[in-house]
Amino acid sequence: MKAILKKKEAVGFDLEEMPVPEPKEKEVLVKIKAAAICGSDLKLYKWTSKIRSLVKSLPFIPGHECSGVVVKVGKEVKMVKLGDKVAAETHIPCGKCWQCQHNRPHTCQNMELFGHSVNGCFAEYSIIPEVSTRKLPEDLPFEKGCLLEPMGIPLRAVYEGEVEADSIVVIGCGPIGQFAVGISRIKGAEEIIAADINEERLNIARRMGATHLVNPQKESLLDRVLSLTNGNGAGVIIEASGNAEALEKAFNYLRVGGKLFMIGHPEELLRIDGSPQIILKEARIRGLFGREIWRTWEIAEDLLSSGKLNIDPIITHKFSLEDFEKAFNIAISGEGCKILLIPVS
Amino acid sequence: MKAILKKKEAVGFDLEEMPVPEPKEKEVLVKIKAAAICGSDLKLYKWTSKIRSLVKSLPFIPGHECSGVVVKVGKEVKMVKLGDKVAAETHIPCGKCWQCQHNRPHTCQNMELFGHSVNGCFAEYSIIPEVSTRKLPEDLPFEKGCLLEPMGIPLRAVYEGEVEADSIVVIGCGPIGQFAVGISRIKGAEEIIAADINEERLNIARRMGATHLVNPQKESLLDRVLSLTNGNGAGVIIEASGNAEALEKAFNYLRVGGKLFMIGHPEELLRIDGSPQIILKEARIRGLFGREIWRTWEIAEDLLSSGKLNIDPIITHKFSLEDFEKAFNIAISGEGCKILLIPVS
Amino acid sequence: MKAILKKKEAVGFDLEEMPVPEPKEKEVLVKIKAAAICGSDLKLYKWTSKIRSLVKSLPFIPGHECSGVVVKVGKEVKMVKLGDKVAAETHIPCGKCWQCQHNRPHTCQNMELFGHSVNGCFAEYSIIPEVSTRKLPEDLPFEKGCLLEPMGIPLRAVYEGEVEADSIVVIGCGPIGQFAVGISRIKGAEEIIAADINEERLNIARRMGATHLVNPQKESLLDRVLSLTNGNGAGVIIEASGNAEALEKAFNYLRVGGKLFMIGHPEELLRIDGSPQIILKEARIRGLFGREIWRTWEIAEDLLSSGKLNIDPIITHKFSLEDFEKAFNIAISGEGCKILLIPVS
Amino acid sequence: MKAILKKKEAVGFDLEEMPVPEPKEKEVLVKIKAAAICGSDLKLYKWTSKIRSLVKSLPFIPGHECSGVVVKVGKEVKMVKLGDKVAAETHIPCGKCWQCQHNRPHTCQNMELFGHSVNGCFAEYSIIPEVSTRKLPEDLPFEKGCLLEPMGIPLRAVYEGEVEADSIVVIGCGPIGQFAVGISRIKGAEEIIAADINEERLNIARRMGATHLVNPQKESLLDRVLSLTNGNGAGVIIEASGNAEALEKAFNYLRVGGKLFMIGHPEELLRIDGSPQIILKEARIRGLFGREIWRTWEIAEDLLSSGKLNIDPIITHKFSLEDFEKAFNIAISGEGCKILLIPVS
Repeated sequence: MKAILKKKEAVGFDLEEMPVPEPKEKEVLVKIKAAAICGSDLKLYKWTSKIRSLVKSLPFIPGHECSGVVVKVGKEVKMVKLGDKVAAETHIPCGKCWQCQHNRPHTCQNMELFGHSVNGCFAEYSIIPEVSTRKLPEDLPFEKGCLLEPMGIPLRAVYEGEVEADSIVVIGCGPIGQFAVGISRIKGAEEIIAADINEERLNIARRMGATHLVNPQKESLLDRVLSLTNGNGAGVIIEASGNAEALEKAFNYLRVGGKLFMIGHPEELLRIDGSPQIILKEARIRGLFGREIWRTWEIAEDLLSSGKLNIDPIITHKFSLEDFEKAFNIAISGEGCKILLIPVS
Repeated sequence: MKAILKKKEAVGFDLEEMPVPEPKEKEVLVKIKAAAICGSDLKLYKWTSKIRSLVKSLPFIPGHECSGVVVKVGKEVKMVKLGDKVAAETHIPCGKCWQCQHNRPHTCQNMELFGHSVNGCFAEYSIIPEVSTRKLPEDLPFEKGCLLEPMGIPLRAVYEGEVEADSIVVIGCGPIGQFAVGISRIKGAEEIIAADINEERLNIARRMGATHLVNPQKESLLDRVLSLTNGNGAGVIIEASGNAEALEKAFNYLRVGGKLFMIGHPEELLRIDGSPQIILKEARIRGLFGREIWRTWEIAEDLLSSGKLNIDPIITHKFSLEDFEKAFNIAISGEGCKILLIPVS
Repeated sequence: MKAILKKKEAVGFDLEEMPVPEPKEKEVLVKIKAAAICGSDLKLYKWTSKIRSLVKSLPFIPGHECSGVVVKVGKEVKMVKLGDKVAAETHIPCGKCWQCQHNRPHTCQNMELFGHSVNGCFAEYSIIPEVSTRKLPEDLPFEKGCLLEPMGIPLRAVYEGEVEADSIVVIGCGPIGQFAVGISRIKGAEEIIAADINEERLNIARRMGATHLVNPQKESLLDRVLSLTNGNGAGVIIEASGNAEALEKAFNYLRVGGKLFMIGHPEELLRIDGSPQIILKEARIRGLFGREIWRTWEIAEDLLSSGKLNIDPIITHKFSLEDFEKAFNIAISGEGCKILLIPVS
Repeated sequence: MKAILKKKEAVGFDLEEMPVPEPKEKEVLVKIKAAAICGSDLKLYKWTSKIRSLVKSLPFIPGHECSGVVVKVGKEVKMVKLGDKVAAETHIPCGKCWQCQHNRPHTCQNMELFGHSVNGCFAEYSIIPEVSTRKLPEDLPFEKGCLLEPMGIPLRAVYEGEVEADSIVVIGCGPIGQFAVGISRIKGAEEIIAADINEERLNIARRMGATHLVNPQKESLLDRVLSLTNGNGAGVIIEASGNAEALEKAFNYLRVGGKLFMIGHPEELLRIDGSPQIILKEARIRGLFGREIWRTWEIAEDLLSSGKLNIDPIITHKFSLEDFEKAFNIAISGEGCKILLIPVS
C-alpha cells in the first residue's frame, strides 16, 4: 500500500510503498476513504519542538482524522464487522489507569495517540484498535465522517458553555473555530463573534453562522465585544487560535462569571493578572483536549448526518496521497480551511 | 461612638469619636459585638496600590466581617427587627444590573463594598443595608458569627470541588486556608494536604483536620503530592496564599481533569504554560470572590451552630477597638491566625 | 374599558365595561395588544373543581398570557417606562418566603397568580406588578410576545432533558406539546415522536419538526417508540396531555435512566408500579409548573425574535374580545391549536 | 465446600457440600470471609412472586453482599491478584449494550445479577467476574467490606440529594435507611428525621445520627416534618421502606422543588395525585437501583476505612453458614438490623 511516513527528525514526510498491515486480536484493518490534515500534522511535518514529545519512535505513519471501511478484523473483535463504515478516535485508552477507571478514557494517563505514538491514517490502509473504532451512520459521506474527530473538541466547548441566548466569542477561525461557530449557531447562541486576521476565514465563518466578524488587526476586539454586549462582556469565549496574546486579552472582555475554553495550544507562556482577570470576575477556565467516548461522537454524528450542521464551507481542498506535498504547503500557508487527503485505489 | 477611620492616603488608621449614624428607609443600625480583620483590611491599613481602586472617598470606616445586634431599623425594613442577632454580607448588590437580574448579586456590576466603598464595621455601631443583613441563629456566638463572611469563599471552593473521597491541596494556611481545610474534612476529603511556610499555621491546620502538612521551604510540595496520590496528582487545589509562584507550580501536581480554585489575590502576573498545564490536562480553573446570597450563608451557619465545624483553633487573638494598632501589627507580622476586634461598651 | 369577567360560580364569562384601573407605586398599567387562551382559562370558563382553589374571590378578570404597551407606571417603578413593549409573568412572587429567598421565585409559597388570584389580561388594559413585568425585544410582534409565557414550561423541559442527539416523545400536541416539539428540533433531538389522538394537531406537530407522528388510537405508541429506539426506549418524555393513562403507559417506553417531565395536569390519580417503572429503571421524574425568572424568558425571547423558532403553525385563530364566546367554544372543541384574543381600540 | 442452595420453587434454602468451582479466563475465585443478608435474599428464601423474574434457573447459590480473599484467578485477569482483599459488585455488566456504552454499566440492559441469575456468595468460595471484583483497602475489616454494596444505593441518594444544611426524611430504618441516616449526618444535613414503626430500629437510627425519630403509628409524620421545617417541608426524602402508602404520603411533606429518592421496592401500585403532588411542587423523583462503578465504591470505602462513618450499630447479628436457618428467621422477624453470615474454615 501507499503510505506517508515521518522518517527523519527533520522537516517533511515521504510517500512510500509498504505491506498492508495485519490486525491483531482486538484490532481492525480499515481501508481509508478520507483523511484530514490537523494542525498537529503540520507540527509533525515541520517537526516543532513541542510535538516531538508525543512521538515514540521513527518512522511512523502520521494522520489521525479519517474514515473508511472495515476490511479485516482480529479474532476477538465484536463491536464492528466487515464492510462497516467507521472512523477512528485518536485517544487510545489503556482501560486500567485512574482516568480510565473513572469514565475518562479520553484523558487516559497511558494514552496512545493514533498517528503520533502509533501508526495513523495517511495511508491506503490503517490499523485501528477496536476500542477506538467508531461505527458511523450509513448515510454519512466519508468526507464528513473524517471530520467528526476534530469537531468533537469545539463541540464540547459549545455544549459545556451553555451558549443558548448568550454571547460567544470564537478566537481563531481555522477548522476548530469554524466548528465552534457552526455548533454555536445550532445551539442558539444570540451573538456569535468570530475573530481572525485572515479575511478568507472570516468569510467562511460568516457562512457557518457568525453574526459578527472582527479582524483584530483592523479594529479593537475588546471594544467590539463590549459594545455588542451592553458592556457586560461575552458569556463564553472559545480560544482556538493558540495565540498567547489573544488569549491574555480575552480576559478583558469575558463577562463576570463567564467561561473561557482553551483549545488552541499556545507556544508561549501566558501572562495573566489573576486578581482582576480571574478572581474578581469569578471566571471559569477550562482546557479541552479530547472527546468524551462516545457521547461526543453521537452528538457530532447526529449534527452531520441529519444535515443540521452543514460543514461544506469548511472543506476547501482535497488532494490524493501522492499530492501530499501540495496539500501541506497550502495548509501551512493558511490558505483555505480544512484540507482532505483522499487515497485513490 | 468610637470608630476606626481611614483618613489619609497613607499608612495607618485613626480611632475617633463620631455620632452614631441614622439608618435610612431600607437600612439597619447594628451595635457591633465582634469584628474580624481580613487580609484586605491590612491592605487598606498599608494603603497598597491595588486596594485603592475599591475605595471611593476618604475618610471612611474600614472593616466588613462582623456580627452584632439590631438596635434601629429604617421604616421600610421588613426582614429583620430590633434585637435580632445579625451579620453583614460585604457585597451590596444594586438589584438591577445583568448579574443581579441573573441570580448573581454577589458579583453585581455596580457593587458597593461594605468597609471599602461605604462605611464598615470597625466601630461601635454600623449601618447595614437591609439587603445585606443576615439574621443569625440565636445559638451562634458573636465571635463565630463574624466569621461566616470569610468562611463563605473557601466553603464554595470545597463544595464546588466535590472533594469527597478525593485528594485536596490547600495552599496558604491563613484564615481562608484554615476554613478550606476544616470544611474539606467535614465533606469527607481523603487526603487534605496543607501547605505553608509558617509552622505555627501548619500546626493550626493539623488541628483543623489536615492529614498532611508541607512546608515548601523544607521539602518539595510537588514530590509530596505525587507520592501521596500514586502519581495521579490532586483532584482539587485551593489557592489561598496569593503567591503567584506557588500558584504557577500548582498546575504541575493538579490531576488530569482536576479543579483549581483561586481565592488568594496574587500581586504579580501569573506565567502559565497553557498547553501542558491547562489544555492537555483538561484543567478547570475557577476564580471565587463572593458568597452566594444566601445559600452559602445557610451552609456556613449550620456548620458553625451545629458544632460540626470547630473553628476555635483559628481565632488566636482578640483586642478592643482602642488596641487596634496592636491588632494590626500582629496581623501584619503573620503571627497567629484570625484576629478579632471586640468593641466594649 | 372592555373586560371579560368571571362573575359567578358557574360556567361562562361576561364581557363588561369598567373603569381603567390605576397602577399603585410598584405597578404598571399595560394596554393589552394580544392575549392567548390557556388550558387553565378553559377550566376557569367551565369552573372545574380543581381550578377553583387557585381563585381568591369573584368577580375577577381571567387571562394571563399577554403582551402590550406600558401606558402608565407607579411612582417607584424603575425597570420599565412609558411606551415599553412588555409581557407578564403569571407567577407573582412575594420576595420573602423560603422559595423566594432561594432564587426560586417562580415557586413562591405565597404566590399570587395573574388572571387567577388577581385580575388578569382579558381586557383592554391590565395592571401588572413591576416585579412580573418583562420588557420585550422591540422587534418581537405582540402576537408572539404573548406566547413567551406558555413557551417557558416546555422550554425548561427540553433544556433540562438535554435532548441533543437523543430520542424524545411528546405526549399531547396542544400548544404546550407543540412548543416542546419545536424547541426539541432546535436543540437537536434526533427522533421527535409526537403523539395525539387529534390528526389536525399531529399535522401541526409535523410542521413544528416532529420526525414521527403517532395516533395512539390507531397504533401502539409503546411498539412504535421501542422500534424507533432499537428497543432502548426514549431518553426523554414530555407529558403535556394531562391524560393519566397516557402518563402511566409512558413508563413502559422510558429508557433506563431516562427523564420524564410532567407538565399536563392529570385530573385522575396516577397508578404506577414503582419497582419496575421507577426504581429498576433509575427513572427521573420532574414536575414543571413555572418559568425561571428571567433566564427562561431570555432564551424564549431569543428563539422567537431571532426567527430560530417559527411558531406560526401553532397560532390558528384570532378573535376580538367581543367574540370571546366563539373563541372559547372553539378552544373547548379542540379545533385548531393556540387561540388569541386581540382587543381592538 | 459448603454452600447454601436455592433448589426448589418453594420456601427455604438448603446447605450442601459441593466442589469448589474453577474460575474461567476472566473470573476470580474468592474465599468468602463475610456475607450479609439483603432484603432480596429474604424474598428469594420466601420465593415471592416478584423476585422470581430475576432468577434464571434452579438450583443456584444466593447471596450477593460479600468480602473475601482472592485465591485463584483466570489467566486473563489483570486487575486483582492472589491474596487481594476484595468485594463483589452485584450488577455484572455486558459491556456492549446502550447503557454500558454510555458509562452506565450499573443499569446494563443485559445485566447478570450475582446471587440471582448467577451463583452468589452464601458459600465458602465464590466465583466473581473480574469486571465486578473490587479490590478493598487493606485496613478495612471483612465484616465492613461486605457492606459496601448495600451502602452504595443510599449513598447515591444522599449525594444526589445535596443534603448539606437541609432537612431530610428517611422512611424505613432497615439497613438501607440506617446507611442513609449515617451518611446524611456525615454530609452535614441539618435535620435528619428517621421514621419507622420498629422502636429498636429507631434507636439504632439515633445512634447513626438521626436528629429526630418518628414512629408513624404513634404520631403524624406529616405534622412533625412540617413543624420541624417552618411549614416548608423536607428538601430531601429517601424512601427505603418499600411501603406504598408511606411513599404516597411523603409527597405531602416534600418541600416545593424537593427531591424524593425511591430505593425500597413497593409491592403494591402507587396512587399519586400528580397535579398537586408533583407538578405544582416541581418535585423531582428519582429511582435508584445500583452503584456507579466505581465512583460510588470509592466514596463508600473512604467513609468506612477512614472511620468517618461508624456502622457498628447496624451490624446486630452474625451466624455461621450452618446456622443460616436461624439467621433468616431473625431477619424475617424484623429483629435487629444487618445480619452477617461468616463461613468458618
